[in-house]
Amino acid sequence: MNIAIIGLGLMGGSIALSLKKQNYVKKIFGYDHNKEHEKTALSLGLVDTIASFEEIKKCDVIFLAIPVDGLIAVLQTLVDVDEATTIIDLGSTKAKIVASIPSAIRANFVAAHPMTGTENFGPTAAVEGLYEEKVVVLCNLEESGAHQQDIAKKIFKSLNMKLTYMDAKEHDRHAAFISHMPHAVSYSIANAVMKQEDKHSILALAAGGYRSMSRLAKSSPNMWEDIFRQNKENLLEAITIFEEELSQLKKAITESDWERVHKEMSDGNKLHDILD
Amino acid sequence: MNIAIIGLGLMGGSIALSLKKQNYVKKIFGYDHNKEHEKTALSLGLVDTIASFEEIKKCDVIFLAIPVDGLIAVLQTLVDVDEATTIIDLGSTKAKIVASIPSAIRANFVAAHPMTGTENFGPTAAVEGLYEEKVVVLCNLEESGAHQQDIAKKIFKSLNMKLTYMDAKEHDRHAAFISHMPHAVSYSIANAVMKQEDKHSILALAAGGYRSMSRLAKSSPNMWEDIFRQNKENLLEAITIFEEELSQLKKAITESDWERVHKEMSDGNKLHDILD
Repeated sequence: MNIAIIGLGLMGGSIALSLKKQNYVKKIFGYDHNKEHEKTALSLGLVDTIASFEEIKKCDVIFLAIPVDGLIAVLQTLVDVDEATTIIDLGSTKAKIVASIPSAIRANFVAAHPMTGTENFGPTAAVEGLYEEKVVVLCNLEESGAHQQDIAKKIFKSLNMKLTYMDAKEHDRHAAFISHMPHAVSYSIANAVMKQEDKHSILALAAGGYRSMSRLAKSSPNMWEDIFRQNKENLLEAITIFEEELSQLKKAITESDWERVHKEMSDGNKLHDILD
Repeated sequence: MNIAIIGLGLMGGSIALSLKKQNYVKKIFGYDHNKEHEKTALSLGLVDTIASFEEIKKCDVIFLAIPVDGLIAVLQTLVDVDEATTIIDLGSTKAKIVASIPSAIRANFVAAHPMTGTENFGPTAAVEGLYEEKVVVLCNLEESGAHQQDIAKKIFKSLNMKLTYMDAKEHDRHAAFISHMPHAVSYSIANAVMKQEDKHSILALAAGGYRSMSRLAKSSPNMWEDIFRQNKENLLEAITIFEEELSQLKKAITESDWERVHKEMSDGNKLHDILD
């Protein structure tokens, strides 16, 4: 089959690298509104060719790997694709996207969120194996056509991903806790140090811990502004719950209630009984 | 020279592994108040022998790699070491330790904070190369004897560490921002999810981002309770500054001021111009 990828950054470029190895893929067509990114993607061999939007629309599968607001706009330009075409989005929020799909192409559309990424962005950030062994959440899959469901499952399974099914609204709440709120926290961890007069002396001491906590603050503001906008209510709830946790820990420290501090830490430790 | 290591966990065990390779080291003596840890350290080959406290005191160099409160207590038992003995502590806070050194052994003592570690603890957490290429902060070094200064510098340089010199109070403020506050935040990130009813469904979606942000919440409550206690005022200040940053970002999201949200993220990005 012919595959089109709209958006040749970290997510689009990396899935192109994985798809190139699949026997069922004939040719990979790329498109990006940033023409420099198209050139870079082609020179890096991420895609076989750069294509016009009309050529993109003729492909069997079209991946949308662009920021989530742009994604809703692009969907409006795809209303005349063939009924056998499969359109798969890779965005980090799902409820608004699912609600915005033009009814003419609802069956064509599969809403997917691969739980993977790095803090880097643009075509040069594309890496092989980004999707390997990772979870992909497929939302409201029963609203997609039977053929499109099969195609999407076949592709994600061929990338050795773990398929998970979820309602779009449930997905967005979970994603707020597991990804969106932690990004907000990481940006604030970075800014807390950047506003200190002696930030250079402070950062000279940075080791693995601070690098872990500030890594996400390297992420693309364009991409994350859209995610925060689309998942605003869930994100605010998750931030508030986090703030309450930190406030309780801070209160225990302020009151020198070290038994309580110890308990909060031991509770935090337990996360890793589930996560690891 | 003979080297003693009091505390055979992550920090003590790992420095033992690095020291074993140095030509100037004759024998490594280990001591831990946890007798199981002593057995494990010996069976893992971290140290050459387990020694009594009296034998420890006869070594040329004594490393203290135990939680910072215990460290102050142990110093009182070392007041009768030889004047040529070098005692080096590896604790994460410095001001209270420096203030607590018995005057009889002030010249013997070197206050060091190697900016390295992992979230794991105990002798099985010891890894080779933990200190390699990392920063070590030496505090109030002018208060140490000339011989002890030379010995400490020689040892840390032989481990390929980057030596930095700082006042203990300045160190503690910097460490609050770069390490202690981020630990508090990480514990709270973990607890925010652990208190959700559907925590298992949420954590099933965890990818690299959440793992980065919750990794430090795996750290030892015993070790971190002591650090928080000893650096309480600086820690509370750093938490407050972080809370203000997050609160500003949250306010911008609440008011749908996306230009401001974008700016906060771009500001956060700039950290990595310094850090990387």
